[in-house]
Amino acid sequence: MSQQPKTAIQPTRAQDYPEWYLQVIKAADMAENSPVRGCMVIKPWGYALWENIQRTLDGMFKETGHVNAYFPLFIPLSYLQKEAQHVDGFAKECAVVTHSRLEAGPDGKLVPASPLEEPLIVRPTSETIIGESFARWVQSYRDLPLLINQWANVVRWEMRTRLFLRTAEFLWQEGHTVHADEADARAETMRMLDVYADFAEQHLAMPVIKGRKTDSERFPGAVDTYCIEAMMQDRKALQSGTSHYLGQNFARSSNIRFQDEAGQMQFAHTTSWGVSTRLIGGMIMTHADDDGLIVPPRLAPQHVVILPIYRDAADRANVLAYCESLKTELHAQRLGDERLRVTIDDRDLRGGEKTWSWVKKGVPLRIDVGPRDIAAGSVFVARRDTGEKESVDRSEFVGTVIARLQAIQDNLLARAKAFRTEHTRVIDSKDELYAWFTPQSGDKPEIHGGFALCHWNGSAAVEAQLKEELKVTIRCIPLEGEWGYDATPGQCVMTGEPSVGRVVLAKAY
Amino acid sequence: MSQQPKTAIQPTRAQDYPEWYLQVIKAADMAENSPVRGCMVIKPWGYALWENIQRTLDGMFKETGHVNAYFPLFIPLSYLQKEAQHVDGFAKECAVVTHSRLEAGPDGKLVPASPLEEPLIVRPTSETIIGESFARWVQSYRDLPLLINQWANVVRWEMRTRLFLRTAEFLWQEGHTVHADEADARAETMRMLDVYADFAEQHLAMPVIKGRKTDSERFPGAVDTYCIEAMMQDRKALQSGTSHYLGQNFARSSNIRFQDEAGQMQFAHTTSWGVSTRLIGGMIMTHADDDGLIVPPRLAPQHVVILPIYRDAADRANVLAYCESLKTELHAQRLGDERLRVTIDDRDLRGGEKTWSWVKKGVPLRIDVGPRDIAAGSVFVARRDTGEKESVDRSEFVGTVIARLQAIQDNLLARAKAFRTEHTRVIDSKDELYAWFTPQSGDKPEIHGGFALCHWNGSAAVEAQLKEELKVTIRCIPLEGEWGYDATPGQCVMTGEPSVGRVVLAKAY
Repeated sequence: MSQQPKTAIQPTRAQDYPEWYLQVIKAADMAENSPVRGCMVIKPWGYALWENIQRTLDGMFKETGHVNAYFPLFIPLSYLQKEAQHVDGFAKECAVVTHSRLEAGPDGKLVPASPLEEPLIVRPTSETIIGESFARWVQSYRDLPLLINQWANVVRWEMRTRLFLRTAEFLWQEGHTVHADEADARAETMRMLDVYADFAEQHLAMPVIKGRKTDSERFPGAVDTYCIEAMMQDRKALQSGTSHYLGQNFARSSNIRFQDEAGQMQFAHTTSWGVSTRLIGGMIMTHADDDGLIVPPRLAPQHVVILPIYRDAADRANVLAYCESLKTELHAQRLGDERLRVTIDDRDLRGGEKTWSWVKKGVPLRIDVGPRDIAAGSVFVARRDTGEKESVDRSEFVGTVIARLQAIQDNLLARAKAFRTEHTRVIDSKDELYAWFTPQSGDKPEIHGGFALCHWNGSAAVEAQLKEELKVTIRCIPLEGEWGYDATPGQCVMTGEPSVGRVVLAKAY
Repeated sequence: MSQQPKTAIQPTRAQDYPEWYLQVIKAADMAENSPVRGCMVIKPWGYALWENIQRTLDGMFKETGHVNAYFPLFIPLSYLQKEAQHVDGFAKECAVVTHSRLEAGPDGKLVPASPLEEPLIVRPTSETIIGESFARWVQSYRDLPLLINQWANVVRWEMRTRLFLRTAEFLWQEGHTVHADEADARAETMRMLDVYADFAEQHLAMPVIKGRKTDSERFPGAVDTYCIEAMMQDRKALQSGTSHYLGQNFARSSNIRFQDEAGQMQFAHTTSWGVSTRLIGGMIMTHADDDGLIVPPRLAPQHVVILPIYRDAADRANVLAYCESLKTELHAQRLGDERLRVTIDDRDLRGGEKTWSWVKKGVPLRIDVGPRDIAAGSVFVARRDTGEKESVDRSEFVGTVIARLQAIQDNLLARAKAFRTEHTRVIDSKDELYAWFTPQSGDKPEIHGGFALCHWNGSAAVEAQLKEELKVTIRCIPLEGEWGYDATPGQCVMTGEPSVGRVVLAKAY
């Protein structure tokens, strides 16, 4: 590996964090920009991560009583018109379909033809089109609760895009549920927030703070928006999932009504909740290092890669046979519900190049198997998260591989929690707050500060000032008992006015 | 059940086949038309079928070495321009995105704004956009074969649509592979055709004929198009899947080249293959009857529904406890790799109404459990495909449930094969052919004829005449050894000219 640079990824996080992020994605072969502005191509390694995220979350949704359905990609303009009247801050950047045909013009060039009577919008989110169905599906209290989820692609015409974090088209799931009363709808809202938080911590190994958004950060049309917020390695916050209690607002605009047990017609209470391919960006920025991606074992496209080492054809047959039988023994075991995913890399590449390709892809465990290992009945194991390497008795390794993978999973979560603790500060003075969010000499401009736990007087004016002067927002008001929760009264860090508890301040993606 | 009509679905197949099809979908609550022209809403029961189809096929794709990826929803107009020059019969009915923003006009109404420099097309298929990536991904023979699949939504602006069979937006998978030589690409083409045929017969219980399309029915741009063709209960053919050998045509238009072992640059050989939500339409028209849907157990969203029967609260507790323990015992077992899916329907509905709702959804096995059954330690079992009902000892039922489900699966396939045989005829005279494809007195206009196995001189003129005069097409030239295969030379049924073997003629969807 002497030919390798000191770190596999150039630049390093410390040298240029935003560029490091893009280079990690490139080195792991996860995704690339496409010729279509703002749309990405998700390559097999990146898509396998999404498939694992999707399969796990889908199981959690079904365990909590939800079923999947599919609604149209297109939304009639008139639906958004209605929406725009109900909702301030309605997003207008979207893909508009105006024609339904291509025709060859005089010069033989194809041009749009057959204009539509009413333009169609490619869904930026499906509330309005799903609401139209729900209004027909829901008639009686017997039809409630209605618990629907959709896996889909959505499009928002973002000006500045970054792979996984913000793209014009992205993949997501959107849950939409209908309930007879507020209590039931609020319980659903919190249930799904918990599902997201459990998934983030147990599978992505990404610690999150569950909290409520302030009025100014709330989803347009929602009564309450709840979120999970994670800290990235540049100490910025990433909003990783949201769950909204919509009250009766969407029920009124979509006319979702039901006959209650007393025979009265009532507007329903609805919720919506979603996570997207953005989670993959969060996973990268939580765990990857200057040698590339590190994948939490629970979501790894491959748990173990076996690298056969041999000099000649005689060796080769021997070594590959040993590798195959080892692969079979490993594949027979399960991490959680899933069989171990094990691959043998017999590509015709130099050893160093081959090893580094798996380091950069972040596979949790790498195993070298050569004639000497076979003779000794051992395997040479490298652990991606710590870089530890050791020669282990083969049968001992097979017997401990699940524990080893779980140890990696646990270490990634513990490491991320320690990082968050290290870069979170309880701040009670405005000077200290401004210093915390201003690069000090020696700081890289992109890497400084972190989370600040501060008292706030509850006014939007203070939020506006923080945004204006520091580019800082209130990420959430932590839920009772959450990490960062503190409801002891105090004085607003900006105004000195009374505060009922601390909020989480940070710069954010 | 006395309040029930003689059949649950009105009209019956014999009375009005096309309307029967729509009523089956409605009664099973599978899908509905949306306010967006030609786009359907796939409801939970229909979508669960798609999820099961998707999960099973995805496993088969991965076992054959394929990986999933995701490419942009939008295709730049210039890509289709290039395509249109290479390919005759290039489809021009599509959704065209021309603007990227909505703005409030003077009257406050939202109107399209920010016109795009180049219009974008919502993908009708992804050959061109995937080709652009493949041209960059493929450099050397070491990169081959490249075996990629995508699960996606696609849009074709169809004029006349029918739920599942033909919709403007539909869900599908499209496989796209790149190979070093023709032999390898042709082997892939046939491998995936076999995967489709095995899936259709083993999971959908839908018998299919594997064959090659004639030149006039070939996919534009393909060297050879292979298909699986099934017979619906109105005796029409449904093309249920296609696998194309594209030769070097797409490699040339997308510039997919590689350096071979000798260091020479070569154009690659590519394939593509796909199936869609149309398979659900095929499943309905293969198995459903005048009481509604019949779902093959291998794909059933629920394998067994348990219907508790009780008079009062005391009964209820008792009966539900018995049902729960029965459900647990059943759920512990596996059909293939999958745990039995069992549901207890304790909705507050009249017994008849409740039972019929599951008949119409086509659940393979229904179980009534009442106090008398509990006393007798038995369950009352109804089988959807045959209508058989019997009281069975509980433990015997638990011990035989997998065999019972497999028996239903086998019966559905056998029944469909017998139907196809019954309505297929070897025809050697033009008069007989014309009579076969013309409603006779007593025939319903939509239900007559079937498949005809005829000799053909290989000319497109004959195909045009058959289409013109009988609305009949050559569905395929059966592969060697396939059902319907007959390579004994003969004389064209239309012209008397020499023929090398029989082809399958039918009216088709």
